[in-house]
Amino acid sequence: MSAGPDTSEVVANDYPVHWPVQTRWADNDHYGHVNNVTYYSYFDTAVNAWLMASTGTDIRELPAIGIVAETSCRYLSELSFPERLQVGLSVERLGSRSIVYSLAIFRETDSGALEPAAAGRFVHVYVDRDTRRPVDIPPAIRAAAEKLVRP
Amino acid sequence: MSAGPDTSEVVANDYPVHWPVQTRWADNDHYGHVNNVTYYSYFDTAVNAWLMASTGTDIRELPAIGIVAETSCRYLSELSFPERLQVGLSVERLGSRSIVYSLAIFRETDSGALEPAAAGRFVHVYVDRDTRRPVDIPPAIRAAAEKLVRP
Amino acid sequence: MSAGPDTSEVVANDYPVHWPVQTRWADNDHYGHVNNVTYYSYFDTAVNAWLMASTGTDIRELPAIGIVAETSCRYLSELSFPERLQVGLSVERLGSRSIVYSLAIFRETDSGALEPAAAGRFVHVYVDRDTRRPVDIPPAIRAAAEKLVRP
Amino acid sequence: MSAGPDTSEVVANDYPVHWPVQTRWADNDHYGHVNNVTYYSYFDTAVNAWLMASTGTDIRELPAIGIVAETSCRYLSELSFPERLQVGLSVERLGSRSIVYSLAIFRETDSGALEPAAAGRFVHVYVDRDTRRPVDIPPAIRAAAEKLVRP
Repeated sequence: MSAGPDTSEVVANDYPVHWPVQTRWADNDHYGHVNNVTYYSYFDTAVNAWLMASTGTDIRELPAIGIVAETSCRYLSELSFPERLQVGLSVERLGSRSIVYSLAIFRETDSGALEPAAAGRFVHVYVDRDTRRPVDIPPAIRAAAEKLVRP
Repeated sequence: MSAGPDTSEVVANDYPVHWPVQTRWADNDHYGHVNNVTYYSYFDTAVNAWLMASTGTDIRELPAIGIVAETSCRYLSELSFPERLQVGLSVERLGSRSIVYSLAIFRETDSGALEPAAAGRFVHVYVDRDTRRPVDIPPAIRAAAEKLVRP
Repeated sequence: MSAGPDTSEVVANDYPVHWPVQTRWADNDHYGHVNNVTYYSYFDTAVNAWLMASTGTDIRELPAIGIVAETSCRYLSELSFPERLQVGLSVERLGSRSIVYSLAIFRETDSGALEPAAAGRFVHVYVDRDTRRPVDIPPAIRAAAEKLVRP
Repeated sequence: MSAGPDTSEVVANDYPVHWPVQTRWADNDHYGHVNNVTYYSYFDTAVNAWLMASTGTDIRELPAIGIVAETSCRYLSELSFPERLQVGLSVERLGSRSIVYSLAIFRETDSGALEPAAAGRFVHVYVDRDTRRPVDIPPAIRAAAEKLVRP
């Protein structure tokens, strides 16, 4: 959208980790841009891939797993396959049983600059793998999330 | 999640239209429930399918198209293929150039009851198909959206 | 494609079961038609939904599960959201440990006719849920598959 | 599958180009492995991304576009997020109006080896962008495809 939203507040340096995400051919919808739904797939993938890389653990096998309780996204500019993206990861609130991520999506330009394309929130609530009742965040996950807390 | 969120506020009767949406095998992710991203695909599909059915028009061919500016979702309960769903559609705000939808997802039980599974918002901003600059909502779309405004 | 493939051989009556499948907004890709990948999602969904409905069983909880060993699809005509589809299901070969499905996708026209859009094959090999070693097809699945064998 | 298919015939060196493809969190389905449908998304993405990179052209804007006429896949081993993949690209037949790709998917091991996970075929037929009637392969695409023809 040429008119649009104010992107000046979404700054790459505010996100302690940038996680690269590839676009796919079918990410583009009928309007020739990445479908709004797919942005959440970038969020979902970046958060979990980073947790797995950072902890060196298959987080899906831990006794407590993160269930998504709430998500939101503001779309700042159109994206299109085959653009290369970086998901900005930060933690807004680290509770005892939940983590609120503040996320952003940036398009990599040819010069290597990062242009903001979206800003979002992503809330994980930790539950027992079997009973699905709320439990404390596993220590390995907590240690990883702490690295994302904005100063 | 057994603990969880207060679902008492999400009531099927508050949504003037219920649009049926099928689940797909691959909607379920590693945790054996519908992935959080997919809920937005239900929203996206229901809004657009209803607009097309209600207007009798291929809305993608109108001079102005609805671009998604913002979305959000609160997840109230887990879903799983092959459950049958209904998306509750209502309009929270009908502007001159944008429509704010208030949406919900309900699981159809065997007895025909609708159990709330998610509540969300979905904002369409209308733009010129070619220039992508903001323009007024097309009359056919406006007339359809008016039917969804909550009394 | 206007030129195209010979569709005369794909006849709805050759498929003992027709399973309805909805299209979704984002099924359409950059070219404004349903992406080739998504046809397999229609196959996947129809086979598993029918097996679950026909057996009255959550087949994912059986000791043996069907793993997909091979698939193929010939695309006969373009599809587009929000078209309504029927997946034609038949069994070409019912082995002791594997099932070869012969499938088709039909577009429902306004007059209720079914126009062929694709023809495919889908091979399930049954494996032990835990060890993932080949085992015999569970009796409930076999009984369901027998109903799909072409006379 | 532990029993399995013969993977000895799928050799990375037989594919002139290896295109890296990322897995996503939701690629895994209920059975905790990448869904069979998603393999085709890897194929689709790799072929088109390579054509765009190799030609330096947005192939979607050419007067002739490649429409998928036929695809197939044999699944050789299970994949799981967050594995890193390489799609092997080769051309089996380069006609005047169509290209038959022979493709493979390899999992990158920690030591950098490539283990075969799937082998497939992917047929593009070129059609006029507007009329969708068959036409000759555009010169830029043909030049790119020639580089993939196996010696």
